[in-house]
Amino acid sequence: MAEFPFQISAIDGHARTGKLATPRGDIATPAFMPVGTAGTVKAMFLDDVRSSGTDIILGNTYHLMLRPSAERVRKLGGLHRFMGWTQPILTDSGGFQVFSLSELRKMKEEGVEFRSHIDGSAHFLSPERSIEIQSDLLGSDIAMQLDECVANPCEHALAAAAMRLSARWGERSKAYFGARDTQALFGIVQGSTYSDLRTESAQRVVETGFDGYAIGGLAVGEGHKAMCDTISLTVPLLPKERPRYLMGVGKPIDILEAVACGVDMFDCVLPTRSGRHGQAWTWDGPINLKNARHAEDDQPIDASSLCPASRAYSKAYLNHLFKAGEYLGPMLLSWHNIAFFQAMMAAMRSAITEGRFEAFRSEMHSRWSGSAEGQPG
Amino acid sequence: MAEFPFQISAIDGHARTGKLATPRGDIATPAFMPVGTAGTVKAMFLDDVRSSGTDIILGNTYHLMLRPSAERVRKLGGLHRFMGWTQPILTDSGGFQVFSLSELRKMKEEGVEFRSHIDGSAHFLSPERSIEIQSDLLGSDIAMQLDECVANPCEHALAAAAMRLSARWGERSKAYFGARDTQALFGIVQGSTYSDLRTESAQRVVETGFDGYAIGGLAVGEGHKAMCDTISLTVPLLPKERPRYLMGVGKPIDILEAVACGVDMFDCVLPTRSGRHGQAWTWDGPINLKNARHAEDDQPIDASSLCPASRAYSKAYLNHLFKAGEYLGPMLLSWHNIAFFQAMMAAMRSAITEGRFEAFRSEMHSRWSGSAEGQPG
Repeated sequence: MAEFPFQISAIDGHARTGKLATPRGDIATPAFMPVGTAGTVKAMFLDDVRSSGTDIILGNTYHLMLRPSAERVRKLGGLHRFMGWTQPILTDSGGFQVFSLSELRKMKEEGVEFRSHIDGSAHFLSPERSIEIQSDLLGSDIAMQLDECVANPCEHALAAAAMRLSARWGERSKAYFGARDTQALFGIVQGSTYSDLRTESAQRVVETGFDGYAIGGLAVGEGHKAMCDTISLTVPLLPKERPRYLMGVGKPIDILEAVACGVDMFDCVLPTRSGRHGQAWTWDGPINLKNARHAEDDQPIDASSLCPASRAYSKAYLNHLFKAGEYLGPMLLSWHNIAFFQAMMAAMRSAITEGRFEAFRSEMHSRWSGSAEGQPG
Repeated sequence: MAEFPFQISAIDGHARTGKLATPRGDIATPAFMPVGTAGTVKAMFLDDVRSSGTDIILGNTYHLMLRPSAERVRKLGGLHRFMGWTQPILTDSGGFQVFSLSELRKMKEEGVEFRSHIDGSAHFLSPERSIEIQSDLLGSDIAMQLDECVANPCEHALAAAAMRLSARWGERSKAYFGARDTQALFGIVQGSTYSDLRTESAQRVVETGFDGYAIGGLAVGEGHKAMCDTISLTVPLLPKERPRYLMGVGKPIDILEAVACGVDMFDCVLPTRSGRHGQAWTWDGPINLKNARHAEDDQPIDASSLCPASRAYSKAYLNHLFKAGEYLGPMLLSWHNIAFFQAMMAAMRSAITEGRFEAFRSEMHSRWSGSAEGQPG
């Protein structure tokens, strides 16, 4: 493994801020990683992703192995060159999408057989094949071990079996990954919402030893409180000196709470997905630009933002674009939302550095609890 | 009328180059106007439309009057402010779309009643109402008179009646438009492919007197040769000192031939529409990025282009984006195509200025006649 240097510059309560150094650039933490599922952050130019304050993006192994295929991406120079992103990329293992999107799955100790949701073609993913795809073919900077994901709620016995299989797959992932100078490998804690399983999982993953530690299996139906409880329980079991990554999370309020627990990295499709559907996230909560009340509102979403998408277009215009089904609506709101999420991460980093994270957190709670259009999913 | 100053700086054969001055900026001619149907040039940021060399865009009265409505655009500060474009805008009269898109049309001398293709609501468009929408409510820089459009082929009697109605509507448009300091009005020559009707129409429109003269009713089924013949016939009947605008045209080869006849302005949805469907226009003809032969081609569409969309993304990546149905495919090819069309217009202007337009035209003919993937529609 590479053990990318991780320097924590300030701690405030359990929250912390710092910098994860990679050969392709530094990642300021807590960090939000926009999701570039199929080699593109949907409806955005990468220049705008970058200038919005993004240090690292996420690529989906499942989607890329099916289309255009990992071998083709390799032939075309790897994922960075293929999509034109020069900063760090983290790839997931493919496991989560195999369990949520693919058809006709067949689980074995060796790995998982499945059929593509795109064309029904047969594929096989093992811990070794996942690392081969991520690190050798796509060439991502941070790879994730393959794990078995369960939905919540999940019976204890099933959650235990999936967690232990994931632990064994973590050992195999590490063995295949071996020693690399410029790439890192993260392990994943599973165990659903069971504290005994999370504890066992964390111990086994830490014992195996990775460059960073992820908390998986959350934001899959357990609700905000169970999510927070599980994070609070798990984070103290992970090494202080390595980055902690909460996978697939989330809403601003979820990210805020997880940062308060000491989480360093996040990814979620929410800003781009909800942007494509007319929803803008703001300091005063989410608003839906399709709502008729915006149809004659000449004001932009956020006149004080540095982001052109937030500042230079009226809500009335955005309302019109969504009503008319124009591309520019999703383009602008995806950009706005990514810029908002990154501004929120930057605000959290500053608050931690300046020792006022609790005040920031409480301010955000009071703003977001009373937001006009609710806190949608 | 405003009679925007039009200065012709060079003539080469019948082709000419110059500058049409408007209060919102100069328009280098021959000019191509990207179409911003519903207040957006589809799938593009206006900064990229502008930096691609666009001096003027076109807005569609029909679409805007139905959604969000001309009155709402007025309330929001006019079309320029609404969509965030500070350069000139030409609006069409709405006539063409009423005849091609709307339902339950009822033609009268007074105007046309129709129902919206969006929600079935009833509307009325007369020469006066069209100018009111274009010049008073949307606030465009150049308005077009309302005309009756016929499809080709069209019987002589029908074409004659529509042309004469259009001529009367032109007089009413001018009367309603009156004298304005900062806005211009163009008349339209109709008459299908009949030389006697085109001649009569041109005489009547010129007699009425406008700031510029459009050739309408082409690119509607008559074919390339009939289009060229009609243009050759009509252009000499129009005043040399005012701009000539060929409406709704077209393919690069059509634009090239019309410039050779002395046409100064063009608009067409082709670059953005075909871009959304995977087609890129190039100096060597059109190519379809969905074609499997591009799937492993690491080269960009045009490495020598100034446009990032043309230069910085491989054909393999574009092929992947279109196969995966990603927004970024249409975003990049719309941008590339607008940049290509504007580069082509700039090349024609230079060739005319330097007295080598015929050599340029012949070079383009030889390139485009043998293009690998044909000259699609």
